[in-house]
Amino acid sequence: MSFSPCACGIDVHAHVVPEHFPAYLGRTVPNPWPSTTAAPDSNGLCHRHVMVNGKNYRTVSEKSWSATRRIADLPEMGLEKQVISPMPELLSYWLPLNDAQPLIRFLNEYTAEICDKSEGKLLGLAAVPLQDMDTAVAELHYAVNQLGLAGVEIGSNINGTTIGDSRFDPFFAACVELDVPVFVHAIKPAGMDRLVGPAPLQQVLAYPTDVGLAAASVITGGLLIRYPKLRIAFSHGGGTLAMLLPRLQQGWTVFPALAESIPESPAELSKKMFFDTLVFDPAALKYLASIFGTQGLMLGTDYPFNFHERRPVERLVSAGFDPVTCDALTFGNARRFLGNSIF
Amino acid sequence: MSFSPCACGIDVHAHVVPEHFPAYLGRTVPNPWPSTTAAPDSNGLCHRHVMVNGKNYRTVSEKSWSATRRIADLPEMGLEKQVISPMPELLSYWLPLNDAQPLIRFLNEYTAEICDKSEGKLLGLAAVPLQDMDTAVAELHYAVNQLGLAGVEIGSNINGTTIGDSRFDPFFAACVELDVPVFVHAIKPAGMDRLVGPAPLQQVLAYPTDVGLAAASVITGGLLIRYPKLRIAFSHGGGTLAMLLPRLQQGWTVFPALAESIPESPAELSKKMFFDTLVFDPAALKYLASIFGTQGLMLGTDYPFNFHERRPVERLVSAGFDPVTCDALTFGNARRFLGNSIF
Repeated sequence: MSFSPCACGIDVHAHVVPEHFPAYLGRTVPNPWPSTTAAPDSNGLCHRHVMVNGKNYRTVSEKSWSATRRIADLPEMGLEKQVISPMPELLSYWLPLNDAQPLIRFLNEYTAEICDKSEGKLLGLAAVPLQDMDTAVAELHYAVNQLGLAGVEIGSNINGTTIGDSRFDPFFAACVELDVPVFVHAIKPAGMDRLVGPAPLQQVLAYPTDVGLAAASVITGGLLIRYPKLRIAFSHGGGTLAMLLPRLQQGWTVFPALAESIPESPAELSKKMFFDTLVFDPAALKYLASIFGTQGLMLGTDYPFNFHERRPVERLVSAGFDPVTCDALTFGNARRFLGNSIF
Repeated sequence: MSFSPCACGIDVHAHVVPEHFPAYLGRTVPNPWPSTTAAPDSNGLCHRHVMVNGKNYRTVSEKSWSATRRIADLPEMGLEKQVISPMPELLSYWLPLNDAQPLIRFLNEYTAEICDKSEGKLLGLAAVPLQDMDTAVAELHYAVNQLGLAGVEIGSNINGTTIGDSRFDPFFAACVELDVPVFVHAIKPAGMDRLVGPAPLQQVLAYPTDVGLAAASVITGGLLIRYPKLRIAFSHGGGTLAMLLPRLQQGWTVFPALAESIPESPAELSKKMFFDTLVFDPAALKYLASIFGTQGLMLGTDYPFNFHERRPVERLVSAGFDPVTCDALTFGNARRFLGNSIF
């Protein structure tokens, strides 16, 4: 069967990696400041190794930094627009603030520049140094108001503290004030000591585990009760949350301590959150819809990394959603998440 | 609607707690050796506090130790038989071996005694001290051959090492040799530092997280390739595995390192494992069936703890399984898991 996508999709989960990084000018040695080095061409594409702590963290292609290359790939994936956010390993929460600040500023300007060249096809998410609330809020203002970025990407935890912790409230308050969406991506995940097998299991198993716990912490920590206007989305279909939620819902009816600390039902709260559709399986996608409803599901691909969804719209169609729901998942929900005003 | 259950179900996930523990005779102080103290009666039932490290770990009712009370509750739950295993906090992997050994022997004899009084309605699972392979294997032989226990319960990790680690191979080899099933229960879970909220979140969120990672480790560690005859089941519907598996399956086709280290597809391997149905939600139950197939799903209740499934057979019926599948999930698969020879 040949598939002719509508090319009207909005991909909320795609990443940018700069071709070059500025040289490190700080004083902390050793330091996980990233750099890139030349890598062999492959499939007619220029590649670079992203070096962190003297090791090759990941080899990425020019699709990671070239607006032209990226835009050329959109139609085949059924996409009209793509939201690009920094490769999470660049979020730099683990750097000293004095180092993180210039690196994150560089990333935000780099992302904005790619978007500026895209004639509206690419929208950028900012990074902010969440190791310090004041600096994070200031950078968010700069990224949105000066650079025109459309929202912000954050990690599922900040140096091990999950995002449902109330210490991050000033940041979320600023997101609401600026009316910008938050995209939560798995990073430096819990559960690494439970993996048996090769390195990619971090991405494959621990990433969805951490993002699931982060999403659960947003529910149990009451974030959406304190900030009901917050628009927050989770990568990888919310990770493991879809399996945790029915048990959390039941536990909420059984344990007085849970009922007391979560004034709205977990199931209802989950319906106020957004999730990408990056689960690689029609049954899993249908299950997300049955657990979370369809009003918060949006296309996500993890483009341009190796482990990305190459046919995101076909994946939706194969799950058997009706046309109205397909449209909502393909672009409608993403517009609401990103803010209709930017369309 | 009044529901008249067939009372033919087999519950593979229920727990036993002794009314009294032997006094600690070892030399390590302080020591997490458990004890019980009197608790107020409630609902006409005698209760005891289970004390660990000087704190009340959990207050449990006489249903935890009384065969009579337990058997009286079976028909209302639609159960003919129940498999009882120690409350996981009693598994004692964290005790010095010299302490764990007599405590586990006491538990196994206690469990066997309850079963012996039950006229075949209760089947017991042993505990074994997995902090030492030789002792664990010896205890398994004793529990099965001398005490007549039907199988063994193990934690999802042993002092932080997940069960897919090959260091536990001698134990699994003994399970195959003795032709007894293994029931994996969440314990001392990963992800505790990602929780925001009251203490029950350990059971509610971190338990299914840890058992999901344990089940994934069995797949990625190749346990069922080394021991194809092993019958192994996971508590809480396999926890988060059902959301991890499609991503693992996709990753297996993308990352050469995963394809090289896992010779059969993760999806196929998952179909050789067993899972209880303790997910409290018809959509989640249907999803387990669509991801794992129905051939390995078996009733589980967590009886008699507060957070248990009170109507397990009705839950299956409400998920809309056809009658043949309902029978398989209600008792057929459990018979195969437990070993048809004991029926």
